[in-house]
This record gives sequence, structure tokens and C-alpha cells, in this order.
Amino acid sequence: MATNDVWINGDWLPAATAALPVSDLSIQRGYGIFDFFKLIAGKPLFLDDHLDRFYRSAAAIHLAPGIDRPALKTVVDEMIGRNELGDAGIKLTLTGGASPDGYSLARPTLIIHSMPLQLERTMSSGMTLITDRHQRQMPAVKTIDYLRAIWLQPTIKNAGADDVLYFQDEQVTECPRANFFIVTTNGEVQTPKSNILAGVTRKKLLEGVVTGYTPIEKDFPLSSVFDAAEAFITSTTKMIRPVVAIDGKPIGNGQPGPVTTAMATQLYELVYGH
Amino acid sequence: MATNDVWINGDWLPAATAALPVSDLSIQRGYGIFDFFKLIAGKPLFLDDHLDRFYRSAAAIHLAPGIDRPALKTVVDEMIGRNELGDAGIKLTLTGGASPDGYSLARPTLIIHSMPLQLERTMSSGMTLITDRHQRQMPAVKTIDYLRAIWLQPTIKNAGADDVLYFQDEQVTECPRANFFIVTTNGEVQTPKSNILAGVTRKKLLEGVVTGYTPIEKDFPLSSVFDAAEAFITSTTKMIRPVVAIDGKPIGNGQPGPVTTAMATQLYELVYGH
Repeated sequence: MATNDVWINGDWLPAATAALPVSDLSIQRGYGIFDFFKLIAGKPLFLDDHLDRFYRSAAAIHLAPGIDRPALKTVVDEMIGRNELGDAGIKLTLTGGASPDGYSLARPTLIIHSMPLQLERTMSSGMTLITDRHQRQMPAVKTIDYLRAIWLQPTIKNAGADDVLYFQDEQVTECPRANFFIVTTNGEVQTPKSNILAGVTRKKLLEGVVTGYTPIEKDFPLSSVFDAAEAFITSTTKMIRPVVAIDGKPIGNGQPGPVTTAMATQLYELVYGH
Repeated sequence: MATNDVWINGDWLPAATAALPVSDLSIQRGYGIFDFFKLIAGKPLFLDDHLDRFYRSAAAIHLAPGIDRPALKTVVDEMIGRNELGDAGIKLTLTGGASPDGYSLARPTLIIHSMPLQLERTMSSGMTLITDRHQRQMPAVKTIDYLRAIWLQPTIKNAGADDVLYFQDEQVTECPRANFFIVTTNGEVQTPKSNILAGVTRKKLLEGVVTGYTPIEKDFPLSSVFDAAEAFITSTTKMIRPVVAIDGKPIGNGQPGPVTTAMATQLYELVYGH
């Protein structure tokens, strides 16, 4: 059986003993950032995009990762070998570190750990969302602040929904762990431009990796979502997943739409096709 | 030398080895609440008020502490004896717990740890603040979310200030770890009513423990602060501390005022006098 070692500030530890002192600023003050990428048969997908964002997030909240990009890639390679990773995810978490007074910024703690992932190689069935009026703080930074999202778990479950869509001042923004897109009735693919985390899958779509369906960044209100022909989300793990109902109301005809399906088909072929 | 043991979900551990697995939802998702009270010569101050708030905060974010109030008090008593605590602080931190997928709510983790405190038995000198447009999420709940406050540390330091005062929609709310009060030019003591954490020292003042100067709860804009005769903050560790300047502008005559001083004198006598 493969090991499941975790790397913390230079040390390799078995997952069962990988731990942070209670004085760490993540535990004391919720202070940290992270990034997450997937491996397909042991090969990282879009690694440089994730590392770009990781270093950007770290700088944005005054945390020095203490390791440069080549050295970090070497650790990732070592983890892939050591843990015999195939289809898997790797998470980089950078926290404020062990703080003697539990408040002042300390030497940051970098944790690198891996997990098995059941990769979805074809588009999943349609999902349903509920809406919630909320704006993530520091939206452009991939912080560990999921207070609202975790708090909403029972609400989502009680509604029989799969996830939540945030909006604020009537503008739609994002899901807690995914970007949001609509397809208008005239076939335009739109994704919110402001107050969101720029996901890597979203970035790839905006760069035009899916021929014929390049989205545009544009803020839109909730009413536009209910007038849309289709809706979907994107994320590293979900890739493209159709959204068929929000707050119990169907989007379009309440089924995964043709544009979503065509985009997903191209994207899955691009990522898994070879 | 006294031990410094930490209690985690029923186990006593030396502080040096007290740690949470990296899968804990505090580390993964910033999910948790806490409370903090002080001991004067080994005696907890306002313990029931802090425990009231602790259990309220826990319920508000769907976390069961797994221990009832009498049992929790017994642990606190045991910690006081075991760690030979005199003037000290005790912090109760309740997190989302070790989550197999790093996202779903798990069995909560309760950490109880103590720290020495240099108690201030007389009013400190005046402090200075900067302002920041921010609204804490779930303000009535004492969550571990201090993302904004920790992020502002370099800004506060660069400004030569001691702390930050939050405001939103032009209404003043609070400091990250303290409540905020003004004394108007006609002698009324006011503290914001909405979108704040109800501090225990604030509660005591509102209950009238300081004769002749019972504050009223009232929301006010930043402009009222600059028109005020005096300003001060309250917290468990700071008790009452005068605020003499905000954003580089003096409050009143830029010195601790007579109402603040009179209130502090009574409060320190009440807490430390016997």
C-alpha cells in the first residue's frame, strides 16, 4: 500500500501524525491561503496556473511561502513518487504560522498534502443551487475563509440542493468552490467579472480553449440567471457541470443544455483525450 | 515550574505537543468559534457571561461542544490547578473538527488552553486607531475569522497606530477585539448597537456597573466620532482604554477624558478592588 505522506515546512510526515500546533494562526484566527490542483495518472494539470495563483494569494496576505517555484515543483514531484499518486489532488495550504501570542503574524506554515480523487471523465448530471446574499472578503485571494459556505451546509441539504450561488447588491458572483456561467438566449456565454475568485478552469475557457464558445466576463444580476437558456459551473474537480435549477426554479428547460454539453465535450477531450 | 497543559476533546496534552490534524476544518476552512476569559489570582472573571456566549456562538455555527456547562467548568477548574494559574487567560476554541474530505462538518474539536496574562490594574495611556471599511461576517458570533484584522497588521504598524476601527455604510461598528464607545459633548456615553460582537465588558457597562455613566446602545456615523468629546474601547484584557486619536486626528483634546477616566476608575475598582 502506498504511503500518504504530508510535507510541512520541509518535513515529511505520515498523514496520521501531520498536525499543526494549536497556536497556528489558521486555528487561532482563520488566517491562511491555499491552492489545489489535480493529477491525471500522476501528471499535474495546469500546474503553473495554480502556482501563479498560489504565490499571488500568498503575497496578497503578507505570507512568504519560504520556498521558490522550482523547489516547490520538486516537492510536488517527490510527493507524486513517494505517495504513488495516480488520479489525485494536491493541496498547498499556507497559514499564518505558530504565533506566540495567537495574533501576530509569525513564520508561515506551508502544508502540502495529497488525496485520491475519483476523476469525472464525462460531464456529470445537472445540479441544483440555492442562492445566498453574501460577498466573500478579499474575493480575488484564495483564502481559507469558507465560514459562510460551511455554515450553509445544513441549509443546502434541507433544500435538497447541491451547492450555493452567492450574490450581493443583486449581482451574481460565484459558488463557494466554483465559478458560475450562464448561456443567454442568444447564445452568449457570460461569467461574472467582479468580486470573484478567478478559477483556473474559468481562465482556460476565457482563453478560448473551447472553440466556438469563448465566454465573456460580464457582471449580471440574478434576474439574468432566471432568464438564461443554460447555466453551468466550472472548477478543478467539477470541470464543467450543468446547473438545471436555482432556488427550485428551472434554468432554461431544466435540463443540461446544448452549449454546456458541447463545451464540456471539448473540455473533457482536451484534458483527458490523450 | 508549572505545567502548561492543553485540553483537547477530553485529553490533557503538554502545550508543546498540543496539535490538530491538518484535516481540521479550522486549518482547511477557517471554521470555528472561541471565547476567552481572564483569571485574577486564579479566579475566573465573568465566567458565566463568557460561557453563555461560547454556547451561543457554538449553536450559531452548528457546532456541538460535546461537553455541558458543569463539566466544562470542572475542566476549567482542573486547568487552573494543574497549570497553577494566577493572573492568566483561558481560551476555549471550538472548530469544525477533522473532516475526511476537508469540507463537510465533522465531530467538532474543543481546545482549552491557558496563557499567562500581565493584567493591567490601572487605566493604560491613550491609544490611536486607524479606520477601515469592513463588516465582519456573522458579527454576533465570536468566530475565528480575523482575516481582515491580521491582514491589516502591517497597515496599522506603518501608520504608527495601535489598532483599527471598522465602519461600514458610514456606521461605526467595533475594533477587531474590542467594543468602541464615544462620550458626546453633552456627556452621553454611546456604543454601536448593530453588526457588532457583544463584548462582556460592554455588557457590564450597559448593565450599569459603573454608577452615573451607563452607556446607551446607538448606531452612529464616523463623523460623530470626530465630533465626540472622548472615545474609548473595552475588552476583557484592555478593560477600558482611552482612544485619543483616529486617522491622525485628535478626539476631543487628544488626551484621555474625564468621563473615560472616571468610568475606568470605577471599573478597575470593581474588578480588582478586593
